Amino acid sequence: MKEVTAEIIAIGDEILIGQTVDTNSGWLGGELALIGIRTVRVRAIADDRSAILEALGSAVADIVLITGGLGPTRDDLTKQVLCEFFGTRLVHRPEVERHIEDLFLRMGRSAAEVLDANRAQADLPESCTILPNSRGTASGMWFQIPLLPETNVGTTTNEGRPERVFLSMPGVPYEMRAIMGDHGLHKLRECFRPPAIVHRTILTAGMGESQVARLIEAWENSLAADGIKLAYLPSPGMLRLRLSAYANADAAEARQRVDRQAEALYRLIPELIFGEGTGTLGQAVGQQLKERGQTLALAESCTGGYLSHLITAIPGSSNYYIGGVVSYANAVKMEELGIPSDMLELNGAVSRPVAERMAQGVRAALRSDWAIATTGIAGPDGGTPDKPVGTVWLAVAGPDGVSAKLGNFPGSRELVIERAAMSGLNMLRKRLMLR
Amino acid sequence: MKEVTAEIIAIGDEILIGQTVDTNSGWLGGELALIGIRTVRVRAIADDRSAILEALGSAVADIVLITGGLGPTRDDLTKQVLCEFFGTRLVHRPEVERHIEDLFLRMGRSAAEVLDANRAQADLPESCTILPNSRGTASGMWFQIPLLPETNVGTTTNEGRPERVFLSMPGVPYEMRAIMGDHGLHKLRECFRPPAIVHRTILTAGMGESQVARLIEAWENSLAADGIKLAYLPSPGMLRLRLSAYANADAAEARQRVDRQAEALYRLIPELIFGEGTGTLGQAVGQQLKERGQTLALAESCTGGYLSHLITAIPGSSNYYIGGVVSYANAVKMEELGIPSDMLELNGAVSRPVAERMAQGVRAALRSDWAIATTGIAGPDGGTPDKPVGTVWLAVAGPDGVSAKLGNFPGSRELVIERAAMSGLNMLRKRLMLR
Repeated sequence: MKEVTAEIIAIGDEILIGQTVDTNSGWLGGELALIGIRTVRVRAIADDRSAILEALGSAVADIVLITGGLGPTRDDLTKQVLCEFFGTRLVHRPEVERHIEDLFLRMGRSAAEVLDANRAQADLPESCTILPNSRGTASGMWFQIPLLPETNVGTTTNEGRPERVFLSMPGVPYEMRAIMGDHGLHKLRECFRPPAIVHRTILTAGMGESQVARLIEAWENSLAADGIKLAYLPSPGMLRLRLSAYANADAAEARQRVDRQAEALYRLIPELIFGEGTGTLGQAVGQQLKERGQTLALAESCTGGYLSHLITAIPGSSNYYIGGVVSYANAVKMEELGIPSDMLELNGAVSRPVAERMAQGVRAALRSDWAIATTGIAGPDGGTPDKPVGTVWLAVAGPDGVSAKLGNFPGSRELVIERAAMSGLNMLRKRLMLR
Repeated sequence: MKEVTAEIIAIGDEILIGQTVDTNSGWLGGELALIGIRTVRVRAIADDRSAILEALGSAVADIVLITGGLGPTRDDLTKQVLCEFFGTRLVHRPEVERHIEDLFLRMGRSAAEVLDANRAQADLPESCTILPNSRGTASGMWFQIPLLPETNVGTTTNEGRPERVFLSMPGVPYEMRAIMGDHGLHKLRECFRPPAIVHRTILTAGMGESQVARLIEAWENSLAADGIKLAYLPSPGMLRLRLSAYANADAAEARQRVDRQAEALYRLIPELIFGEGTGTLGQAVGQQLKERGQTLALAESCTGGYLSHLITAIPGSSNYYIGGVVSYANAVKMEELGIPSDMLELNGAVSRPVAERMAQGVRAALRSDWAIATTGIAGPDGGTPDKPVGTVWLAVAGPDGVSAKLGNFPGSRELVIERAAMSGLNMLRKRLMLR
């Protein structure tokens, strides 16, 4: 089976000077990989005619995805250049104009507010297929170059694989994603029939990439015989493990192969796995609390509110999160959390007894079922030979008592805060698992 | 004066499948723009020989910056391809080997721990100039194509402008930035002598991009006559305005032009400007508090700890930040912040009196000079016709009393939280300005 390749052209001066980070290309590359299409090149170019023509003309892949350059103010340039390249002209599409009016109405504005510049977005190249944009006024434009001169007569859609497809879309990420999700990915699969590919993404926390790799080495080595590829996808405080297998003829058979190996992984590192797919550790913990009808409170020192933010960033978290105390100064630790001053003097604020008492104190004060506490040295200053930057005591208090753990987190202030917060969440997850 | 152009080649399969977002290219494009060099193209390509050769061979700009593909495990491929392209060979550089050993010692490891793979990083193309990497083991490699065949004999450095420079660097962002900052940018300026360019970046908060644009329209129109360009650089809760002018012969003269227009902007929107350069609103407020020897406490409901995180992300914030209460549940508002239950019943939690009392309550409880409070509806659920999602009451309590403000922030839960937090910070900044 021939490999299907893609390349991406991102149009926009703002990308070239670093005012905008191009997140579209990475997203597209990831989505294409999930359906078995390999991205071979990404190009970011200036918003001008010759640069666009040069990029279109030097395309090499089966699929060319173009993002950007389609705003109402600059619409003409990119569309004119596409017309020039494909030897076609702009024609007015009444159905697109109606869609633009509908969008205005849905946003609570009247059809009279549709500007001429917006109406002009219904003028689109004659030879392209329109892929509707459910989130905005700039349509997706699908151009198809047929494979053989003989088949050039009559319809070319669904008549075998085209030589090349160009798909031009707006650069606004959620609009581009809507066009790809609603139409683009489906049409590309239909058109090029890439080999089916089966994925399963297993979410882990509590151990770094290299340690996990050592732990699962034998299992990882056995994957090749099953035709399964493993990707390590680390982010602060968590590690995703993605299993992928091409389905030769039978997708169900490939699914079975992946499931069998995923089960083996569950048996190997059960305590590290907290979910599958796209979730976060905060969501997993929140889900567990919600199912039990239990509540959470926080006492944060070194994480300074970041752990609270991780939890409250999740819609619906008010169902289980009561609140917290950020006890940056020792006075707050004493007065709001009831830490005795001699305990602070004897052990220092960064110590096991203080972390434990913080968790117990906030649990009692806010009357929650569970509480997490953090106290440590985020840096860059404040470290000592005994307690260097990155030293963090974490504690979890619950119905069955309090537990504490010492963490040593490397990296910048930002990373120490992130890792300490994720580590605290993971401690709570494990306590909830045991019950 | 001839324009100087650059292009960037980012090597790495992980970029093409979206596992890594390429932040290097945007950073490079921004840094080059600051010294008057225009980036015309960015390409991300796979980590393989033919893709690299094709990209090098099709370069069009004066300067070609290459990132990635230089890790100890994959070192050979990229370096071999560079040797092939430039017709040279690898030679061992003892001074680079010593630098690698030094790096290991500085990281607290012994020279005996230097692996063969690390030592091999001292094998570098014979025809390149080494740009040392102060943060890692992979060196920068500078290749220079002389302009004229006649000058090909003898030294080519500093003998006029070369036809093209290729600079290959590791993909790890902080290593790449170190090589560019320590050597690359300076050498590029020396080599190509781009027109000098003068910048001044003015930081504003409290008003959106389009409103600011309307307010300063006449001023903006007057910039062209002074040869000054204006860039709007928005991020959540703040807007940077960057003035740039090319210096024709005299940099001091260009600096004067920019300064004159910057002063005019200060007279136009004095209350919006909080600083210059690269700072954040949190840093500006922290600086003001530190200078006065005053302290801050927070009472957060809808921002859920995010405002506290913004403040504690800044090193040294423990000098002025005492702590805060995240009062997600009404019980916490009553018990920790002293909000009367009939006030909550009468006005609802999202109201002016509750916001004011939260700020006063946390200021009293934590005995700070200043306090900020937030209470609102972050969404996506919980909105009502009276108080739709995005409705947020903000209050600031200080030595001279309490003030409150109603915000209506559009966007996702994440954006409502970000904008409310920045808006609260900006309220405090303005109160501090008045005193």
